[in-house]
Amino acid sequence: MILFQCDYNEGAHPRIMERMMETNLKQSPGYGEDAHCRRAAQLICKACGNDRLAVHFLVGGTQANMTVIDAALRSHQGVISAGSGHINVHETGAVESLGHKVLAVPHKDGKLTAAQVEELYQSHVHDSSFEHMVQPKMVYISNPTEYGTLYSRKELEELSRVCREHDLYLFMDGARLGYGLAASDNELDLPFLAEHCDVFYIGGTKVGALFGEAVVIVNEELKKDFRYFIKQKGGMLAKGRLLGIQFETLFEDDLYMEISRHAIRMAEKLREAFREKGYPFLVENRTNQIFPVMPDSVLEKLSGSYGYSYQERVDDIHSAVRFCTSWATKEENVNSLIEDLKNC
Amino acid sequence: MILFQCDYNEGAHPRIMERMMETNLKQSPGYGEDAHCRRAAQLICKACGNDRLAVHFLVGGTQANMTVIDAALRSHQGVISAGSGHINVHETGAVESLGHKVLAVPHKDGKLTAAQVEELYQSHVHDSSFEHMVQPKMVYISNPTEYGTLYSRKELEELSRVCREHDLYLFMDGARLGYGLAASDNELDLPFLAEHCDVFYIGGTKVGALFGEAVVIVNEELKKDFRYFIKQKGGMLAKGRLLGIQFETLFEDDLYMEISRHAIRMAEKLREAFREKGYPFLVENRTNQIFPVMPDSVLEKLSGSYGYSYQERVDDIHSAVRFCTSWATKEENVNSLIEDLKNC
Amino acid sequence: MILFQCDYNEGAHPRIMERMMETNLKQSPGYGEDAHCRRAAQLICKACGNDRLAVHFLVGGTQANMTVIDAALRSHQGVISAGSGHINVHETGAVESLGHKVLAVPHKDGKLTAAQVEELYQSHVHDSSFEHMVQPKMVYISNPTEYGTLYSRKELEELSRVCREHDLYLFMDGARLGYGLAASDNELDLPFLAEHCDVFYIGGTKVGALFGEAVVIVNEELKKDFRYFIKQKGGMLAKGRLLGIQFETLFEDDLYMEISRHAIRMAEKLREAFREKGYPFLVENRTNQIFPVMPDSVLEKLSGSYGYSYQERVDDIHSAVRFCTSWATKEENVNSLIEDLKNC
Amino acid sequence: MILFQCDYNEGAHPRIMERMMETNLKQSPGYGEDAHCRRAAQLICKACGNDRLAVHFLVGGTQANMTVIDAALRSHQGVISAGSGHINVHETGAVESLGHKVLAVPHKDGKLTAAQVEELYQSHVHDSSFEHMVQPKMVYISNPTEYGTLYSRKELEELSRVCREHDLYLFMDGARLGYGLAASDNELDLPFLAEHCDVFYIGGTKVGALFGEAVVIVNEELKKDFRYFIKQKGGMLAKGRLLGIQFETLFEDDLYMEISRHAIRMAEKLREAFREKGYPFLVENRTNQIFPVMPDSVLEKLSGSYGYSYQERVDDIHSAVRFCTSWATKEENVNSLIEDLKNC
Repeated sequence: MILFQCDYNEGAHPRIMERMMETNLKQSPGYGEDAHCRRAAQLICKACGNDRLAVHFLVGGTQANMTVIDAALRSHQGVISAGSGHINVHETGAVESLGHKVLAVPHKDGKLTAAQVEELYQSHVHDSSFEHMVQPKMVYISNPTEYGTLYSRKELEELSRVCREHDLYLFMDGARLGYGLAASDNELDLPFLAEHCDVFYIGGTKVGALFGEAVVIVNEELKKDFRYFIKQKGGMLAKGRLLGIQFETLFEDDLYMEISRHAIRMAEKLREAFREKGYPFLVENRTNQIFPVMPDSVLEKLSGSYGYSYQERVDDIHSAVRFCTSWATKEENVNSLIEDLKNC
Repeated sequence: MILFQCDYNEGAHPRIMERMMETNLKQSPGYGEDAHCRRAAQLICKACGNDRLAVHFLVGGTQANMTVIDAALRSHQGVISAGSGHINVHETGAVESLGHKVLAVPHKDGKLTAAQVEELYQSHVHDSSFEHMVQPKMVYISNPTEYGTLYSRKELEELSRVCREHDLYLFMDGARLGYGLAASDNELDLPFLAEHCDVFYIGGTKVGALFGEAVVIVNEELKKDFRYFIKQKGGMLAKGRLLGIQFETLFEDDLYMEISRHAIRMAEKLREAFREKGYPFLVENRTNQIFPVMPDSVLEKLSGSYGYSYQERVDDIHSAVRFCTSWATKEENVNSLIEDLKNC
Repeated sequence: MILFQCDYNEGAHPRIMERMMETNLKQSPGYGEDAHCRRAAQLICKACGNDRLAVHFLVGGTQANMTVIDAALRSHQGVISAGSGHINVHETGAVESLGHKVLAVPHKDGKLTAAQVEELYQSHVHDSSFEHMVQPKMVYISNPTEYGTLYSRKELEELSRVCREHDLYLFMDGARLGYGLAASDNELDLPFLAEHCDVFYIGGTKVGALFGEAVVIVNEELKKDFRYFIKQKGGMLAKGRLLGIQFETLFEDDLYMEISRHAIRMAEKLREAFREKGYPFLVENRTNQIFPVMPDSVLEKLSGSYGYSYQERVDDIHSAVRFCTSWATKEENVNSLIEDLKNC
Repeated sequence: MILFQCDYNEGAHPRIMERMMETNLKQSPGYGEDAHCRRAAQLICKACGNDRLAVHFLVGGTQANMTVIDAALRSHQGVISAGSGHINVHETGAVESLGHKVLAVPHKDGKLTAAQVEELYQSHVHDSSFEHMVQPKMVYISNPTEYGTLYSRKELEELSRVCREHDLYLFMDGARLGYGLAASDNELDLPFLAEHCDVFYIGGTKVGALFGEAVVIVNEELKKDFRYFIKQKGGMLAKGRLLGIQFETLFEDDLYMEISRHAIRMAEKLREAFREKGYPFLVENRTNQIFPVMPDSVLEKLSGSYGYSYQERVDDIHSAVRFCTSWATKEENVNSLIEDLKNC
């Protein structure tokens, strides 16, 4: 059985594992206050072209989202998100569990527009009972989105502008950021993110690490007391160095981008195979998630040998599904799937 | 200036004020443990035809909603509501502030259907990552709704059935319940509510009282420790008897329904006047809220003498607005408005 | 049965009830945005000698405490309180229910000292794992305290100084403030409170009103968006004018202090009677709460005719109890109790 | 520099690292639903002598505490803990951040007694305003405690009895459980814990793992929907197998106890050295944490070569400090410290 259903089916990139082994019995202080975390933070600052960023390492994405959002909002404030946003759908209400409403708006291929933010903001401030409504204070976007799509430079600039104009924080969930930056239609880079977001994170769990997300805080207001929030939300790893070691490895010698490019190459190869079969896509995108609409009969044949995830029913005999590649995807497995596809 | 913008512009019905005066300097124990509260609870049980109901008196609607919902749900559970539901829009995220997600679904004239509940429930339990999503556990409806519409017997029976089948609590917000029960198209009564809901409340604030909502708990599971929640949410009135006295007055001699019928008579008279002018309605309903779609020019003329509330823009020269009547609406004021309308 | 167990056994002062009657059928806007609330706020500003105060009217004390505290603190911050503080003991964990720890320290007769605050603050900032601990950000005191004692000018000045030095908010719960200001050993007045606290409230529920607490915000940081919090915590009364009318009545013509002085006169008379019987006091104080330590046999005799509240067991045959007077206490009832005491 | 300040200064036991390497590129499903987690759970059930236990793997201790407590309590309920309990002091108010009060009582060497629980419970139920107080529903203990002390069989039996009698859940934090079970004065074992607790956890982070705590749920009531809580609190590791692999390794071939015994042997050796120097101990215990009271002059000499943690000031020239050993402590380092101690 070859699994394509997600991008966290394997462990970590071998170079990370080596580093873990090398350092395993060395002693270091706990809770992220070690030399590895410091160096990893410096490498990330350098990659972002800004040495005044605060970088914190958290174990996972839900943890990162809830910690950032709760640290940013007062009790009466909410976060605007596309309805398809991970925080709105797939985190068991973590944001609400900390007291904040997710102000969900309709999405287009997983994306939110500056115009939607502007409209929601204006409708709030011009409502005579605005105090009876949750005050919007943050905008949450993911890049790549849950549908594997990307924000263009222009889209992100506009979102950033509307946020700054209305004193809203712009927060980007980058759980799959590497796969976005490596995509053929990508227009962004880390320095651009550090200029346009107030806070974002660089995903490790899905991009080569055993686990870990590097939260990058740009806005001074959000830096204060952030470590209290990490601890309170249960996210402060005792052996914090494990996070430092992993991000150090990913951000020296460009490993992060190198392995991201591999995943994209595998995805494009697979995408081409679906296209050749004449399958349309639920969403057009160029990142590591592929959403072909396929005949159920074909899916049934494949399902004995390949894992994929079910997305939605399209009609009586077709379903949209998701195939993911990752840093760990073996080309031979992709070839095998392509071959079997041809024979279906 | 004559106000029609809401149903809480005056104090209380004179009979309530009399009773407040009579009892003013009598001593009684605090926190709702007095003879007036006990008697009011008995009268309400009697009106509901069920003497095993737990009845608690709270000061206001947001308080009642948040207390009931937080008492019913565990942290990972959410409440299904029409998108237009008061808890979803106009309570500054009170439900979320206590940790629970409002699972909003599209509404039709403010209403939610059993089919929508069924669909949301099924999509939850059949999703392979159901544990990554908020678990639906309660259904919130309002009757009359925020658009002044009513649930039919059949609609409520179906909602009740789907809730019981899937172990969901059915909660009805009755902030304007009197105006619903008195409407010409009403099919419900208190015993029917007590049979089909797990918990509901009978609104006093908008129906004759200075303030106060009587929460009626039917389901045994929801009765336990409810007073702890009232206190914790800041809703336990020291002089709880004020609530008892008011509901005692409303529920002996049918005062609650008598004054509700007055409001409806006033509303129907006014509604007829709008209809005669040829104004369509944003929503068709027969309760105390009227939503005519009117030329802005007419609204402008009226606005010097009459208060109403703005609902939404319909086109370049028309707006939907809201006029409310209540137990306190003077017929002479309605006549005056009708007269002025004719001359517009 | 004559009740002395608390100071909220009756309704409201007759002048308040009159005003309620007079205004009952007049129309006014809802949610505290009416002329009565505005005027009441102005009268309170005037009494405090400061016209830049933000004054908000809430229904009850727990509501006021939780709203002020949640509006002031971020999630990782806590409020320092005497262990005996109302928020720590008798509000069903309302503060914790909103996510904040009450940092309780031992009390002396219900009071907290500047030295205790200083020590807790220093121990926090000098602990190497300070980020693993709740950050102190507010100091909560009550005046009179739960034991009926008062802060002297010097004590409050010192608390204020240590708070300002360490950027802590000083919050005073004045649920019984009138009875403090009217006591013979009182050294404070409203302008002094407005100079030394960041926020405090003037209790109405226990001092002549049907219900209501006037929250006075001095510190600019705490003023922002406060009404969102009132609404979110369920404390925004639809007919907000009821609060305005009551505080208007209490703060024109000095009614608030006049009725407070009555309660104190009654308390002193009763206190003297206990003293003459040779009963010691659990706590020495001069406000409206009296805590005599009495033989159980005497208590038993009295309990057929008089209500009091049980405080704590002192030895095998003595208990400390509480007798309260209030604005509504009839001198004849006090005389009757004194007479019966003499005969025990 | 040789670090003795905590038991998480190194990575993981070499056998765990080997297993991580071996499995690194194998594919498995995410979120703890893999074969390693299943097998690890079975091994733990077996070690506990009970195959109906629910075992869940979480990343860290604060995460485990907050998840278990929030899953167990309704909003108005609190958890009784020794004042020194980790949840009360060193988790940045995580429990309160989820809405629950920690009902702290004075500790004796870090321990809580059945009598204290009984007293708190009784004082709650017999207080006439019990509904104004947080309802006790869970008892939290740690074993070893924060002071390295242990509960005897009798103490735990009594705690268990009082909890069952009053329908309180008994929860044991076993972050250092191995070091407790391996101590010379230990009377407990896993089957005994599974009989007497409702839920407990077996710490991995401090006992040989890179990270990880195995939560063992005994009480059926606490099993329901537990994975929703893990996800909501941000504790569901995408590559959950990492936890499974580690606990599998620790619980086959008795590795967990073997390495725990090593830590205890090192601790006893070091403890003996302090004793020989005539240093008293802040607390007497036999686990891996040692709390000698030492002259500041000696501490100063050692501090260039050895890390320890500061506990509290004892007098002008003495401090209580903490030295920890662990599974990773090298005997040569202990010898070196002992040698240097002798020469001080």
